[in-house]
This record gives sequence, structure tokens and C-alpha cells, in this order.
Amino acid sequence: MKRLTGTNEEISNILYQEQLELSKENLDVEATVREIIEKVKEEGDEALRVYSEKFDHVVLSELHVSDQVINEAFDKIDKDVLTALENAKANIESYHKQQLEGGFEDQPSQGVLRGQLIRPIERVGVYVPGGTAAYPSSVLMNVIPAKIAGVKEIVMITPPQEHFVPAILVAAKLAGVDKIYQVGGAQGIAALAYGTQTLPKVDKITGPGNIFVATAKKLVYGVVGIDMIAGPSEIGVIADSTANPVYVAADLLSQAEHDVRARAILVTNSAELADTVELEIEKQLQTLPRQAIARPSIENNGRIIIAQDVESMFELMNLVAPEHLEIAMDKAYDYLDQVQNAGSIFLGHDTSEPIGDYYAGANHVLPTTATSRFSSALGVHDFIKRIQYTQYSKAAVNTAEKDITTLAYAEGLQAHARAIEVRNDKN
Amino acid sequence: MKRLTGTNEEISNILYQEQLELSKENLDVEATVREIIEKVKEEGDEALRVYSEKFDHVVLSELHVSDQVINEAFDKIDKDVLTALENAKANIESYHKQQLEGGFEDQPSQGVLRGQLIRPIERVGVYVPGGTAAYPSSVLMNVIPAKIAGVKEIVMITPPQEHFVPAILVAAKLAGVDKIYQVGGAQGIAALAYGTQTLPKVDKITGPGNIFVATAKKLVYGVVGIDMIAGPSEIGVIADSTANPVYVAADLLSQAEHDVRARAILVTNSAELADTVELEIEKQLQTLPRQAIARPSIENNGRIIIAQDVESMFELMNLVAPEHLEIAMDKAYDYLDQVQNAGSIFLGHDTSEPIGDYYAGANHVLPTTATSRFSSALGVHDFIKRIQYTQYSKAAVNTAEKDITTLAYAEGLQAHARAIEVRNDKN
Repeated sequence: MKRLTGTNEEISNILYQEQLELSKENLDVEATVREIIEKVKEEGDEALRVYSEKFDHVVLSELHVSDQVINEAFDKIDKDVLTALENAKANIESYHKQQLEGGFEDQPSQGVLRGQLIRPIERVGVYVPGGTAAYPSSVLMNVIPAKIAGVKEIVMITPPQEHFVPAILVAAKLAGVDKIYQVGGAQGIAALAYGTQTLPKVDKITGPGNIFVATAKKLVYGVVGIDMIAGPSEIGVIADSTANPVYVAADLLSQAEHDVRARAILVTNSAELADTVELEIEKQLQTLPRQAIARPSIENNGRIIIAQDVESMFELMNLVAPEHLEIAMDKAYDYLDQVQNAGSIFLGHDTSEPIGDYYAGANHVLPTTATSRFSSALGVHDFIKRIQYTQYSKAAVNTAEKDITTLAYAEGLQAHARAIEVRNDKN
Repeated sequence: MKRLTGTNEEISNILYQEQLELSKENLDVEATVREIIEKVKEEGDEALRVYSEKFDHVVLSELHVSDQVINEAFDKIDKDVLTALENAKANIESYHKQQLEGGFEDQPSQGVLRGQLIRPIERVGVYVPGGTAAYPSSVLMNVIPAKIAGVKEIVMITPPQEHFVPAILVAAKLAGVDKIYQVGGAQGIAALAYGTQTLPKVDKITGPGNIFVATAKKLVYGVVGIDMIAGPSEIGVIADSTANPVYVAADLLSQAEHDVRARAILVTNSAELADTVELEIEKQLQTLPRQAIARPSIENNGRIIIAQDVESMFELMNLVAPEHLEIAMDKAYDYLDQVQNAGSIFLGHDTSEPIGDYYAGANHVLPTTATSRFSSALGVHDFIKRIQYTQYSKAAVNTAEKDITTLAYAEGLQAHARAIEVRNDKN
């Protein structure tokens, strides 16, 4: 892991430049993706078949994944996996139900009523990657908050394959997906955005995907809502001398194994801990099945920062604004106040980050590349709309008339003023 | 106004196609805007001076707008405008304070703690257009929710001009802007996103602007958060035979005067009302100062839809998903249940939409071009982050071990499993 040294300001400048690199646009595939989207918009199902043959090498007979196929997945699934998915589902549900929000209403003065309604988004599409990135845990994390929000119809799409991973279909059914279609890539995103003869158009699309999927989501944003464009996974660990280097190393590697571009960052005020963690990482890497991914990730993007003191550790980590933040310190809970930017926090020596990936209940769809400065984990709030309402009696409009028309005339918008004046019988 | 006829399905198809047209990307200026952003990123203040001279024809001596200039604005402002701004501020504050949300915490089982923190975004930039689109009401609507959320620093930028509109500077001060800089256009957005020698970089940018500003916001999204890319203003009016055609016409015109691209849509179950509203619009247009804008807006983008019944009126309007929705019916409040998609609703015959533009307290920064299907009015929620946290004791991790490692192995992520197993002294 590369060590960053210098003053807090110098280190924060380095971190900022590294983050800008990560958030750079990838324009290479845009033209291709634009073309795919246009084709799906014009030709619908036929374009989906053509692209599935071209990209997935599958001749599609049916776009819809039948109940029979889903039922077979329940027969095939490993029973321990099924139990784990059911338990994870219960935890994710009980966490996310706490995010449900109500509307409000007030009567600030005579004849005036104001409020805010909460409405679920009507139809949501969830993208689930195929191949090795087909994660049933992601199905639960994307679908359950939508279901709790009250979304009426949840449609899932996933690239066609000869044999679906049973856990993917089972997770979809457990979480409450209404319909599954086998179509992937940019063509799948286009189908969700514009609809085809078979696929209904949705109001919002969530879920991870490769660069084609991410670019397609970016391009259809506006026609539909999207969750976010996620970058590579990140873990930041704040650890002091009370931390267990074996645990810290294991947790840093757990994110490093995701992707050669993943970032693992250790900030510590103990030079000794930094040294032992480095030795321990090397030791654990030796026997790690995904060493070919985790090693370059650690070597290229791993960072160790030795901070002066506890305050500096948090100051620097707030600049990193990591997707996952572990606080590997005694009494970690007491340091929550110091966190300004992070997607999800894991407190204390035993709360390993994978607990959150799979199980504890908080969402694992999280803001990456420092976007936790301004955005949050996926949640129920991403599947609702807040609709404002206002009611004024005629007397109330007349009372407010002078203020409103004064501002309207000041802004040069006379029709605005007239709409108020016309309500006054004295005019 | 053009009349749309046919079955609900036929009308909804026409409306959908019209909306797609409106959400089409404008790629023409992207290359220019990219170049401006790169230049500001590299050269900072110097680039801002060069572009201000080129686009705004102003040689900037100071980027920062001094306290003296702001104090002079308080001397110059019309006293009625000041009073109106102060009253509007109080209403906007009291409405938005109701949007404040708290975190939560639970202990679902022995040794397990989960929660969610609410943190304000640290630094926000607000764009305020210059010239005729300099609206003090927009300053209040963008800044007050950020202030209530607890944003630590709010920076406003606005194009340089010989004499600022006093109400803009006064509104900024009243609402709680910390610093004002005179720089506009794509260069201003780039400065907020990346920072320069003088301007601090922010975490999120809000506020309306022309196509250069909107494109710049789109391009810096990811490096910073943005509010939305707003399209032309829209008003949808649902009216039955109890509606007053004079009021309905005045309200449709109040949005039509914004922009030749603005949309005014009347859905009614009364053919008679439709006729009288059309006559009334023509009558009111005759004397409207902004007739040159409002007339083409009404003629090209105005739509009248005669619906079969009350249910159809709401069904069709939910497809329009208008930015502003008026329900011009007796007992309008009772129809709230039927609204699925709208930015802000105005209830009853007397609640003219401009009440909301200026005064009542609900926000006037609203989702346009049918994006209220998946997004909401600007509010306090746009200026906070929800940060998840989780704490497991060692015993709790050990209890959950089997489920977590089962899922990790099923997903082929062994380092995830190991991070859990290493916490178990029995392994």
C-alpha cells in the first residue's frame, strides 16, 4: 500500500486529485450506447433480440422469465443459501421500515392550508448483472426498499443465460419482484426507459452494471429517474493502537477483492499498527482465491495515512468520504459525531464490513468516489415522491395580494400579478 | 390552444410523445461547455476573468461582491419589496422546517445496533441568473431549505453587471447566503465544482440557468451534486363546471408568460368551460405586457383535453405529471388522493399558482417535463445526507457467521467470508 505523508492539507490535496481521476467521465462508449438506445426506442422487442444475439450470443425465444423457471430455482437452490437470504431479507426489511416518512400539514393562518404528501413511485426497474457479478444480495438491497415505499410494480431485468443462478431468481421472488425479463446491457436499460411491446416502461431504474449499463443509465436520466452511477468499491478504515491488525487487514482485503480499481484506505495514528497491517495483508493475500484481483487493487489503490491524532484521522477520512467506513477503535460509537461524510459506518473492532454487505440490514448500495459528500445510501426515500400542496381562501389571497403582486411586478411578471388581482372583487 | 381528442390511451400516447420531445438532450453546446470547464479547472480565477470579459463584456476587478455593495442594496431596495421578501421568507421557513427529519436507531437483537444519522451537506453553491431572469424569489427558494438543513456555508454566484438588482442581494442576505461572487455561465458552475484561488469548491450546486449553465451542471455532476436540470415551466389545471373561467385563464397565462416553451394544459370534463376559458385567454392576452411570450406559448404548447369524467381527468393529469397542478373544483381537497404525480398542488378556485411562486411557503423549484413521476420539489431533504451505521458485538458476528459466509461463498467473494471467520476464535 502506498503511504501518503505530509501535512493534513497536503494529504487532502493528494486525495482530492486522486478522487477527481476516479470521477472522470468515460466518453468512449457513449456513441455506441446512444445508437443502441435509439434502436430500442424505434424497434422495441426486435432490437432486444438482435442485441441479445450480438452481445450475449443467445437467441431469445421469450423475454419474460416464466413462473416455471422461477419455481425451478426454488427447487435447485442450496437450502443454506435460502435460509441466509430469508434472514437477510428480514433484517433489511426491519432496518428500512424505519425510513418510512409521513407527510405533514399545517394551517399557518386563517384560510391557509399547506402540506406535503408522500407517494410511492409507480413502477421501478431493477438491473441485475449476469455472470460473476450476479449478486443475490444486491437484488434484496435494491428491491426491498422499493417494496417498503409502496412501489406498485417492480420489474427486474438480467442478461439472458442458459442457466440462471437460482439464488438470483429466488432473491427476486422473496423481495417482491413482480416480473423478470431476460435482457441485459444498454438495450435492457433502454427497454426499461422507453418500454417495448413486451417490457413496460418504468419511472425509475436502479441497480449496478458494467460501463455500457452505467452509460445507458446516464443517458436515459431525465426520461426516467436513476439511482446513481456507482464507481469502484471503497473501504476506509480509521484505526488506532487498540485495533486488531488481522481484522483490519481482512476487512481491507474484503473490498479489494471486488475490483482491481477498488480502493482500500487505512488512516491511523499508530505507525506500529500501519506496519503490522501491511505485513498481515501480504500474509492473507498469499492464500486468497481472488488474489489476482485483490493484489493489484491493494498495490495500486491501497493507501496508508499516518495521522497526527484522532482529530486528524477523522478530518482526513471526511475528505475521503468513503463508501464504507470502519471505525476500529475502542468505544467507536462515541466517535460518530466526528463523521461528516460516509455511505455506511461499521463501528468497533468486530463489525466487519461484509456484515453490512449481506446481512445487518442497512443498504449496501452506497455513494462512491467521495459522492457521500452530497448523497446517501439507497433507501426508501429513493422510491417516494414528496408532493406539496397549498390552499388559500379568497380572503387569504386578498390579504396576501400586496406582497405577492409587489414581487411579481418587481420580477416583471405581470400575468402572475393579474392572476392574484383577478381574485379580488374590489379590483 | 390545441385540443387533444381520443380515448384516454390515445391522448396519453400523444402526451407521452410530446414529453419525450421536451426531454431530448441538447448536445450542441456540450463541446464548448467542456472546454470552458477544463480551462477553469486548470487556470482558476484567470479563466473566470477571461470568460467574463468574453461573454459578459465586463472586466472584473473583484470576484467577491463586498459587504458594502450588499449594504447599498438595502438602501436602494423598494420598501414594499423588502417587506414582501421578509414575509415570503417567514412563510418559506415555516413550511420547510416541517421537512426536517431525524435519524433513528434500533437494537434488533442481542449485541446488534443499527441506525441512521442525518448530516447537512457542508458547502452549497447557488446559481442566480442575471438580466431579466434574476428572480429574488428563486434566491429565497434555493437558500432557505439549505439553511434549515444546517449547511455550514452557502455561496451564491451571479453574472457580473454594472448594477445588481438590489432585491437579489437583499434576498441573498435575508436567506442567509455567506458569500456572493460575480461570475456566471458555465465558468461559474466550473468554479463552484472545482474551486479557484478565490472561490471555494462546493459539495452541491443548485439554481436555474440558461443552456450553458444547465449543460455545465450536467457535466460536473458526480464531482459535485446538483439539484436537477429544469425544463420549461408547466401548469396543469383540472377544472370542472364549478370553475371560474376568468381565474383559470389568468392562471394558465401566468405560466405561459415565462417562456415560449412553457406548457399550459387544461383538463376538464366540461366542454362549455373549455370554450369560455379559450375566449377568456384571448381576451386577457390582448392587454398582457408579455403577450409576445405568452401568445406563442399558448398557441404552440397550450393543450385542452376534454375528459369523460372526474376519474379520467386525474388519470390523464397523472400522465402529464405537471410541475404545477391546480385543482379548480369545489371541495378540491377531497381529490388529493387521486393525485399520483405533480410537483406542487394548488387546491380550489382561489389558490392561484403564483401564490406558490412567491409566497405561501412550499418550494417553487419543481420537477418539470414529467419528472414528478420520480422526483420532488427542492427541499430540506436535498441538503442532507443519511449516513447508515451498524455495530455488532463479537458474539453477534459469530451468531450470524453461517448466514453471512454462506452468501459470501455463494457470490464467490472469499475475502468477505474470511473477514467474518477471522472474528471467530473457534476457527
